[in-house]
Amino acid sequence: MKLLITGGGGFLGARLARTLLARGHLAGRDIAQLVLTDIAPPPADLLADARVSARTGPLLAQTDALRDEPFDGVFHLASAVSGECEADFDLGLRSNIDSTRALLDALRANVNAGGKAARVVFSSSVAVFGPDPAVPLPSIVADDTLPTPQTSYGTHKLICEHLVADYTRKGYIDGRAARLMTVTVRPGKPNGAASSFFSGIIREPLAGVESVCPVDASVSHPVSSPTRTVEGLIAVFEASREAFVGRTALNLPALNVRVSDMLQALAEVAGPAVRARVRFERDERIARIVANWPSGASAARAAHLGLLPHAGYAEIIRQYIADCAQAPNADQTLKGLAR
Amino acid sequence: MKLLITGGGGFLGARLARTLLARGHLAGRDIAQLVLTDIAPPPADLLADARVSARTGPLLAQTDALRDEPFDGVFHLASAVSGECEADFDLGLRSNIDSTRALLDALRANVNAGGKAARVVFSSSVAVFGPDPAVPLPSIVADDTLPTPQTSYGTHKLICEHLVADYTRKGYIDGRAARLMTVTVRPGKPNGAASSFFSGIIREPLAGVESVCPVDASVSHPVSSPTRTVEGLIAVFEASREAFVGRTALNLPALNVRVSDMLQALAEVAGPAVRARVRFERDERIARIVANWPSGASAARAAHLGLLPHAGYAEIIRQYIADCAQAPNADQTLKGLAR
Repeated sequence: MKLLITGGGGFLGARLARTLLARGHLAGRDIAQLVLTDIAPPPADLLADARVSARTGPLLAQTDALRDEPFDGVFHLASAVSGECEADFDLGLRSNIDSTRALLDALRANVNAGGKAARVVFSSSVAVFGPDPAVPLPSIVADDTLPTPQTSYGTHKLICEHLVADYTRKGYIDGRAARLMTVTVRPGKPNGAASSFFSGIIREPLAGVESVCPVDASVSHPVSSPTRTVEGLIAVFEASREAFVGRTALNLPALNVRVSDMLQALAEVAGPAVRARVRFERDERIARIVANWPSGASAARAAHLGLLPHAGYAEIIRQYIADCAQAPNADQTLKGLAR
Repeated sequence: MKLLITGGGGFLGARLARTLLARGHLAGRDIAQLVLTDIAPPPADLLADARVSARTGPLLAQTDALRDEPFDGVFHLASAVSGECEADFDLGLRSNIDSTRALLDALRANVNAGGKAARVVFSSSVAVFGPDPAVPLPSIVADDTLPTPQTSYGTHKLICEHLVADYTRKGYIDGRAARLMTVTVRPGKPNGAASSFFSGIIREPLAGVESVCPVDASVSHPVSSPTRTVEGLIAVFEASREAFVGRTALNLPALNVRVSDMLQALAEVAGPAVRARVRFERDERIARIVANWPSGASAARAAHLGLLPHAGYAEIIRQYIADCAQAPNADQTLKGLAR
């Protein structure tokens, strides 16, 4: 089978690609070709795989060519992120709505030319939820909570959920939208997103670097690990239409965790000296943004697909440490960990 | 003030225009100019008013020019209807999503050039609601019921609700989305829409013509009169932002009425001979479509704006008869009414 991952050069996209290549099959079929599109080229290990081809540049510049190229499956992860969309309204519309529409229309062109509808997993986000004065946000958002997005990013994700549903209803794709939770621990550097500290307060202390937590220890948030997130995307792809149930987006599993729980887990797993590298210094701007986010999420439909959240945050930290230990720069990323 | 009505040549748009011109003011300001856009020209009585100018052609062909033309207020009613969107997927996307986006971007261009944000009322629809296997539809849909549209038309309306909310959040417009209920009694001819009979079973018997009801008498549906619908659009325009509450769409008031109630009201108002011109002949295709529609709607937020549904369907029939009696073709439209 021939697969496409948009955003295939990014952190999650590359990780999904690695997992798929290691499995070798998806939904009962061998993976013969894996096309990765992104604005930057994918990591070298992916390019070294004979099944992989990379196409570098904006997705919107690539969709015309896709109209004559059949795919069996698509993971559509490419997206401008929250901060980018707030800073540049047109960029957000173009990168998130126009690109998705053009991708879906390319897949539709293949069906109109007599091809089979591609199976499509769209990565939506818990960011579709937000408090509107007319609709109080429940503390735990469920699959069927009314989304009232409070950012352009969340608005775009919700709009694309409904495009995916309607193209599916018409038989142009076999689409499924899955809402990703905040992924932690992300490797690399702080990225300026308001949610960046959810990874930073674990990643930096493990690297021996001081970290500042900009919100109260009592703040709760729905998170998931990179591994579980990738597993979720794959399970949603492999689900039958009946098992997915309907065409409405579902929540991927969330561990609803307080900052205090995260730091206690860090002390347990890595020791009190590592935990002591995190100090609290309230940032009103970030605290106000985070106060608008749901404090937790439930995922009943994902549970029916066999997807469950981590039992506790310590599992997520241990997974991150194991990932780092396998990477060539472990002496840096785990510099703060007494071993 | 200078106003724009898109879809200003249509039944509701022209009626809204007449009401606004007769009032002469809106939100405390005199109406100096009223621009009507539509694919067909507006009725002659509107063109005869010195305040009115008409622009004929697709909205999408007109939005570039609007980027340099400030408006104080916009009623955005233009839309491809349900049947058109199902028959021509591209037409629906273009007429409903692309045109709305281009209109909003034209208004944004005015703000970016230093102008004041236009107040915008977007006419959404009860068609945003539908039953998805993952989310059972309540029998009465409320302002905050989760929309899971089951038509392209409903999908487009929902997407535009969220575009209007996000452009409002950013200060590019002062937007409000109001969901219209099924408008009855529509004058004119049956239009092939699945909901057409909700007007036809009243309009045809009053004109002395036999009418077929394609669904069971027990079918219930949220309806409103043309007058109350226009009043609702105006009240939503005039509401303060605080009174509108938030940026989420609201339902306009609905009379939740069974077909049997409608026909009983017809007998009361017009006599049993008129009622006897309606016979039941089930049409499976229409019955299946109607079974997917909500059987009623509530409108708590509209009630806070002072908007209430009719007390009963007889009021709606009497209003239709009064409207017809004033029109030049009353001898045709009320031919069946013994007077």
